[in-house]
Amino acid sequence: MNKLVRFGVSLEQQLLKAFDKHIEHKQYPNRSEAIRDLIRDELVGQEWSDNRETVGTITLIYDHHKPDLARQLTDAQHQFGSLIISNTHVHLDHHHCLEVIIVRGKSQKVQTLANVLISTKGVIHGKLTMTTTGEKLH
Amino acid sequence: MNKLVRFGVSLEQQLLKAFDKHIEHKQYPNRSEAIRDLIRDELVGQEWSDNRETVGTITLIYDHHKPDLARQLTDAQHQFGSLIISNTHVHLDHHHCLEVIIVRGKSQKVQTLANVLISTKGVIHGKLTMTTTGEKLH
Amino acid sequence: MNKLVRFGVSLEQQLLKAFDKHIEHKQYPNRSEAIRDLIRDELVGQEWSDNRETVGTITLIYDHHKPDLARQLTDAQHQFGSLIISNTHVHLDHHHCLEVIIVRGKSQKVQTLANVLISTKGVIHGKLTMTTTGEKLH
Amino acid sequence: MNKLVRFGVSLEQQLLKAFDKHIEHKQYPNRSEAIRDLIRDELVGQEWSDNRETVGTITLIYDHHKPDLARQLTDAQHQFGSLIISNTHVHLDHHHCLEVIIVRGKSQKVQTLANVLISTKGVIHGKLTMTTTGEKLH
Repeated sequence: MNKLVRFGVSLEQQLLKAFDKHIEHKQYPNRSEAIRDLIRDELVGQEWSDNRETVGTITLIYDHHKPDLARQLTDAQHQFGSLIISNTHVHLDHHHCLEVIIVRGKSQKVQTLANVLISTKGVIHGKLTMTTTGEKLH
Repeated sequence: MNKLVRFGVSLEQQLLKAFDKHIEHKQYPNRSEAIRDLIRDELVGQEWSDNRETVGTITLIYDHHKPDLARQLTDAQHQFGSLIISNTHVHLDHHHCLEVIIVRGKSQKVQTLANVLISTKGVIHGKLTMTTTGEKLH
Repeated sequence: MNKLVRFGVSLEQQLLKAFDKHIEHKQYPNRSEAIRDLIRDELVGQEWSDNRETVGTITLIYDHHKPDLARQLTDAQHQFGSLIISNTHVHLDHHHCLEVIIVRGKSQKVQTLANVLISTKGVIHGKLTMTTTGEKLH
Repeated sequence: MNKLVRFGVSLEQQLLKAFDKHIEHKQYPNRSEAIRDLIRDELVGQEWSDNRETVGTITLIYDHHKPDLARQLTDAQHQFGSLIISNTHVHLDHHHCLEVIIVRGKSQKVQTLANVLISTKGVIHGKLTMTTTGEKLH
């Protein structure tokens, strides 16, 4: 059971005021939730630099008319098949596709797969987004 | 027609050597492809800060056992329905879900939707990834 | 007077444990200090995107043998003279200099000065670091 | 001797046009200089993740009225004395100081020193900026 605990934070009054204004703008319901998010974002960064089990998404924009490109991207994904959870494909317009590949695995392996896909000729833009399995972060 | 043009870049020999080594490690087929990616990544950043029409993904990790959370996330997405292209949901384990929402619109509106979703109580980790419609970037 | 106030944060036990381990590694004396830093870093980012009065450093690496380069960098600094607080110059080796320029002003103006300096031919690497006047952040 | 070499890059016409507009805005004198900067910035990131010999700056904002703070910061710097090249101190206002410490060494050691200084109670904002010795990057 992962019960909620409570602890006190001491802060300068002025800083707290600035923070309250900021989290209102960011639409947080309360301070605890905003602080939890700051903490988790810090810890996710650490998970990725420690080569731990992670979850991420690889986002690719490409022109599906480029001969052979779709096949190359599929081949690469098959080589790293054990990392891949799912794949979503969106037709942005007559030419452009967006593909979002959801991956799970050691962060270095995920990074290698992202490198292979993003560096493929014809991929217009690629990004690896690092998130987390969620374990231990709540 | 978007034809390929060619231009010359002058570079110090030593820097070129370091770059060649780097792109080999990153698995690029040639220098042009690597340089195109550096250029596009720079331009995508600019598109987002200029509030132009953009494409992005919002990645959320949450515990689907939290009462009412899924409904809140769905409600928020309906309020910004015109921005949303698709939604992929993955069950990471007994507790954790990963949801990837693909969005398209003015970058500030997309940012607001991301703020609303990420700040929702119970969302363990959230990230907005900025990419592009692909237009003008190739 | 900027007195210290205290408020409670509620957090999942497991998350708190992970955070405690992380801040020990980062050498923080206690949780309040670590949380204050997360909050301030978030707010500094906001200050810079709101074009408020800010403080920053511009770090340049260049080869001081390049004819005319030092003069160009000095000229540019004189054009933005009202922004510049100080300038530190370090000889890294026979060729390379590091120059750190401390600036204060509206964030957009500071950004423009950084663009001019970093884009000067012969500057090997340049970075703008955004910090704060410190007002309201404690 | 590090002579200039020239090589060709092929790019879609439309992308080149967007890039030309962008570098004009960023005040670059020509494409080669802009591309060199994109390349070097990519390589500096790599140097830091490989724990190579690097150069950086640590920027601290603090209130010099806090009892004992200046002494603590000085003590920490003495413990890592071999890393420190110079130290610039600026009085921002009656309360706030900006200190810029220029450091050189293996990136992990530099990171540890930055952690120690930034986590010190009373430091309002701290940043580590990663740059380079300049060797091999031109």
